[in-house]
Order: sequence, then C-alpha cells, then structure tokens
Amino acid sequence: MSPWSAASPGLRVAEIDTPALVLDLDAFERNLRTMSAAVVGSGMRLRPHAKSHKTPEIARRQIAAGAVGICCQKVSEAAVFVDAGINDVLVTNQIVGARKLERLAELARRARMGVLVDEPEQVRALAAALDRAGARMDVYIEVNVGGRCGVPVGDALRALAKTIAGAPALNFAGLQVYHGPAQHMRDPGERAAAIGHATDQARAARALLDSLGLPCPLITGAGTGTFRHERDSGVWDELQPGSYIFMDRDYADNRSAEGDIHFEHALFVLTTVMSRTHPARAVVDAGLKASSVDSGMPAVWQRPGLNYLKASDEHGVIAIDPSAELALGDKLLLVPGHCDPTVNLYDELVVVRGGVVEVIWPIRARGATL
Amino acid sequence: MSPWSAASPGLRVAEIDTPALVLDLDAFERNLRTMSAAVVGSGMRLRPHAKSHKTPEIARRQIAAGAVGICCQKVSEAAVFVDAGINDVLVTNQIVGARKLERLAELARRARMGVLVDEPEQVRALAAALDRAGARMDVYIEVNVGGRCGVPVGDALRALAKTIAGAPALNFAGLQVYHGPAQHMRDPGERAAAIGHATDQARAARALLDSLGLPCPLITGAGTGTFRHERDSGVWDELQPGSYIFMDRDYADNRSAEGDIHFEHALFVLTTVMSRTHPARAVVDAGLKASSVDSGMPAVWQRPGLNYLKASDEHGVIAIDPSAELALGDKLLLVPGHCDPTVNLYDELVVVRGGVVEVIWPIRARGATL
Repeated sequence: MSPWSAASPGLRVAEIDTPALVLDLDAFERNLRTMSAAVVGSGMRLRPHAKSHKTPEIARRQIAAGAVGICCQKVSEAAVFVDAGINDVLVTNQIVGARKLERLAELARRARMGVLVDEPEQVRALAAALDRAGARMDVYIEVNVGGRCGVPVGDALRALAKTIAGAPALNFAGLQVYHGPAQHMRDPGERAAAIGHATDQARAARALLDSLGLPCPLITGAGTGTFRHERDSGVWDELQPGSYIFMDRDYADNRSAEGDIHFEHALFVLTTVMSRTHPARAVVDAGLKASSVDSGMPAVWQRPGLNYLKASDEHGVIAIDPSAELALGDKLLLVPGHCDPTVNLYDELVVVRGGVVEVIWPIRARGATL
Repeated sequence: MSPWSAASPGLRVAEIDTPALVLDLDAFERNLRTMSAAVVGSGMRLRPHAKSHKTPEIARRQIAAGAVGICCQKVSEAAVFVDAGINDVLVTNQIVGARKLERLAELARRARMGVLVDEPEQVRALAAALDRAGARMDVYIEVNVGGRCGVPVGDALRALAKTIAGAPALNFAGLQVYHGPAQHMRDPGERAAAIGHATDQARAARALLDSLGLPCPLITGAGTGTFRHERDSGVWDELQPGSYIFMDRDYADNRSAEGDIHFEHALFVLTTVMSRTHPARAVVDAGLKASSVDSGMPAVWQRPGLNYLKASDEHGVIAIDPSAELALGDKLLLVPGHCDPTVNLYDELVVVRGGVVEVIWPIRARGATL
C-alpha cells in the first residue's frame, strides 16, 4: 500500500493527494436516513450489505441507524467486521472448503453468524465443522431467482430443508431470495416484473416448507435497485441493500418510476490533470486501478463538457468540449462506474464535510477475498 | 485485508485457500531468462516495469537477471521499491502537484530517480521541488506516439528541452517513447507498423535535439507486446516490458509472427466451485474482485470444455460443455484477462514450484496509487 495517506483532517478537498476515494459525509448521512425511513420505518428488518463499503466505521453507523446487523460475502470479510465488534453477520454466500468452514465456525463462537446453502453436501460439511468447534449458526437456503446460485422451488429445496433439520448445530433461519440482475435493469417496469416473479417463487418456497412442517422463520434479500418492491411484496422480512450509501454511475443510469426512493452520489474519486498537451483531451491520474471499469467508465461530476473517455492502468482520458476548460493540475471528482470494486481498490476513505477533510476511515476489509 | 493468508509453505496447490493469486515459479524463472537473453544478451538495457508486479521480491530477481533498475508509474509505488532497497527507479509518468513533487524529490536524495515531463510547467515545478530538497534527478521528455501523454516532435519538444537545460537540478536523461495501444494489437503486422511509425518519431526527436546542441543520452520505452521491434530498431537504448514475467489472457490473444519471443503463463487465480445446482453451469468464488475484467474474462487453464462466462463482484460463472465434468469443491486455475490490475487486488503472491507452495511474497506496492 501507499507509505503515506492521501489526506489528513483539516485539509481542503483541493489539497487531497490523488487519486483518492472521497466520501461526502453529508450526502452519506442523508442516504443512511433515507434508507432507515424507507425500510426500518416500515417495520422491515434492514441488514445492509457490507461488501459495498468494507469499512467498520460505516457498519457501525448503519447499525446505529436501525440495521439489525450486516451482510458479508466472504468469511475473511466477515472476520474483519467481527474483529471490529459487529456481532451479527450473515454471509450471503455458499462457503465450500475445510479451512473456510473451520474459520466460519470459529466466528460463530464469537458472533451471531449466518450462511447460505444450496446443496446437502454443504450442509453436512458445515454441520461437521460446527460440531468440531462446539458452535451453532443460522443457515438460510438460497432460492435461485437471479440465475446464479440457489435451488429451484421443488425437490432440491425439500431435500435441503430436511438435511438442515437433521443437524443440531444448524438453526434453520429462513430463505435467501435475491435477484442480482434485476438491480441493474434500466427499465423500472422490468425491475418490477423481475421482483414480481421472485415474489411468486419466495411465496411458493415458504408454502413448500410449511407443507413439510418446517416453517420458514424469515425471507431475506433485495438490493438498492429493487428493494422497494421486496419491501412492499408482503413476502420479504429483511432487506440487504448495499450501494445506497454511496450510489454509483451504474445505479444512477437506472430510469426511475413513481415510488422509487432516491439516493445521492456520496462516493467520488478525486483525480488531477497530469498531462494537457492535446487541444481536446486531457489525461488524469485515475485509471482502472483507481476506479473499476467493469460497469463502464466513471462520470465527471458537475463539470459540463468534460467526459471520461477511457481508462488504462494509471491514466484516464478526459474529452473536453470546446465550451469547457481544463488546465494542468486541475482536480476533478469522478462518480465511479461501480462502487463495490472501486472501494476494494483503496485502503482508506477520505471523509469530507463542507469541502474539508473531517476524518480518514480505514477500509479494513479491502482485499478480504478469502 | 484478509486476517489470514491463503497458504503457507509446504501446502499443495489443492490445499491453498481461494481465491488466491498463484505464481508458477518455474514458468516465471523461464520468462525471466527468456527476456534477459533477448534483451540484455543483445546489448540493450532492460528496465522492467514494476507496475505489473508491485513486488520487491520480483524486482530483485529482475535486477539479478541483468535489469539496470525498474520502472514505476506512481511516486508512492516508487517509494515502496526504494524502501525495499531498489536504488534506480524511473517513474514513467508526469507527476503533478506540490505534495507529490516533494515526495519525489525526497526519493531522489535516496536513490537514482527519473521522471517524465511533457509541459514546461512540470519542469519548473519539479526543479523548484528538487532545489528545496537539495536533490537532483533524471528527466525524460515523453514523445507522444501512442495518443496519450507526451509532445509531438516540434516546437513543444524544443521548448521543453531548453527549459530542462536551464534547470541545474535536472539531468536531461533522454526520451520516453512508448506506444501503449500497439502492445495489444492482435495482428503482428499492425504491431510492427505502429512501432515503425514510433521509430520514425524517435529518430526525428533525437535529430531535433542534436540540432539544438542538446544531445539525447538515451531513448527508453517498449512493452511486452512489441519490444522485439524496439530492440531491433537501432533507435531505442532501453526497454521497459512488464507483463512478460506473468503473461495474461489478453497478451496471449495477440497473434504471433516469426521472430516474436514467447513467454509462458506464470500467474493464475486459484478458485473453488462453490455452487453446482445447474446442469450446464457452475459458480466459482473468484469474481471481479479476484480477477480484473477490464480486458475481458479470465481463461480456464488446461480444463477443456470449461469456460469462464461472466463475473460479478464475488462470483464467476463457468459454462460446462456436456463433455466436461466439474464438481462442488473442485479447484480451477484461471489465467487473468489482464495481469496488472489483477495483481493490484491481492496482498500476497502464493509462489508455487512443482505443485507445492514454496514461499509467500507480499505485494507491497498493491494499492500504491498516489
């Protein structure tokens, strides 16, 4: 990592070294409040996804704003949050491998932990690891509605539920029903229809469990792009949005409809113009190691006539309209194309209020992929 | 970062926790030898680019194999290598901003440092920072041949050379002539033609400097995709390839021609099948936080009938041909689409020889973007 920090408290934004990951604290706090009002205020459980921020300081603020705990995606990521004092973590993923299960069981001795399964073999390996550790944990069956992991509603779900019920170390906690692709469907009607289909599946899964005499305690899922539909479905009990605290260019590209809940851009990459030899282009010091391009290029923030054209490892090319000006040494804020993998590139979040650095938050779970 | 390491010496590859970045030491050492034979053996200077590996253990081996020093892309990256004892570093980038220049001047007191310029304003700011630090350093003018940074051969080059000559703290060290886009042109004829054009520009730039009475000590540049052409041009004195030690899927997609020098895949992402509920697909635990997808998906290594189809943050989807088999818990090696940003996702390189972990190398400059 860099031997020095990009900033220290009291600096103005223009004095921050670049590229730096900057959090607008006012916008972030408004996003926190908007989500709490929309979800906790409606009587639903909120369990935000920490894979987006990987930052204990943010998890603490989410819990203070009414969240019941957090989601993580990896065992090592969960360990960072448990070490930081977060005591209720759902790993929204299947965990396979003896070393991983041993670590997970160890965490279950220290915090309330949950995990997903979609094959009986996972259930047996998890139960064995928990028995060895003398621990218990929550297990959720993932129902496949997004085309990735999970089981369809039918025999596979039935077999899984029975295997879980036969393992004393496992607490059958409910169903994970998450539609990933729906989050980024541009058309609001398509998003609603996708979650409508997922709602039918979730309802059928609950009915199947009821018919087995294994009632489903809770249905959890949803993301920033669709959570209003899961909230209003009458089926989900708990929601897992992650990106709402930051928002990124990709989420902002979703078209909205009446009833959608709006969040502000709070996460930016600050960058400096380092080369300005071409009349219609400039080169900035933030490339694809500073802003992930998997979901497209970042957007230049509030500077009409400037467009981030392309990224190489350490360079970004800015196209300059004839109406716009941009000089060597000028700084720009970029809205990342995709917040999660962009955050994962940085060791620190430079937290700014009113144009002045207030604090630096370490992104402690950055790179925790195990 | 992860609270634990993916591996320890003595483990077999199948026992490494995943996703992990794995270096095949035998293939890496063969790549080192191939490059040394091709470049150092031909009497050229070799200055490999450390932005690809960010790992002092690798820089030391490159220097032991005949390199004169290394290239870096960022001041903080260079600082990591100077701290690790590498004492000759060329920052192949324009450096803008008072804090960065102060750090760079500080490094120039401890090691032989070089940097690029393409505007007189950069030269003046650098000279002032060096004067304040009581340091001197090498300065190279970047000639624009790849369409990004640098000046054309003409008035701008003339003005820059004169500004450098007037600054006692600056040692005019030569020209940087690097054609980035040519590295990944698929057609060998197009690569040769692009470097042919760059050769003409480099020759013209040198002639212009001669005409000013400011002879050019050295021309440096080139990458893994084209270095044989720069080597054989009669114009370049020093070559800067980076990816040759690892190779990635994107470089392997370049079609080759007679006289091209071949390197082996030495860098892999080890991943585990974590979900296997669909007949024709599996989900692995390496997504786009484990293998950068900016240059396309990773390739599955030596497992015919398996294709890495798409990546989300922490998941990869593998398409399974009817002829192939893949079970829950199976491990696969992936060849990353692009090695540089993939390495930048990891804190450690698991170094393997003959299927057994030999050592763990810290990727100390990972995330050093300042």
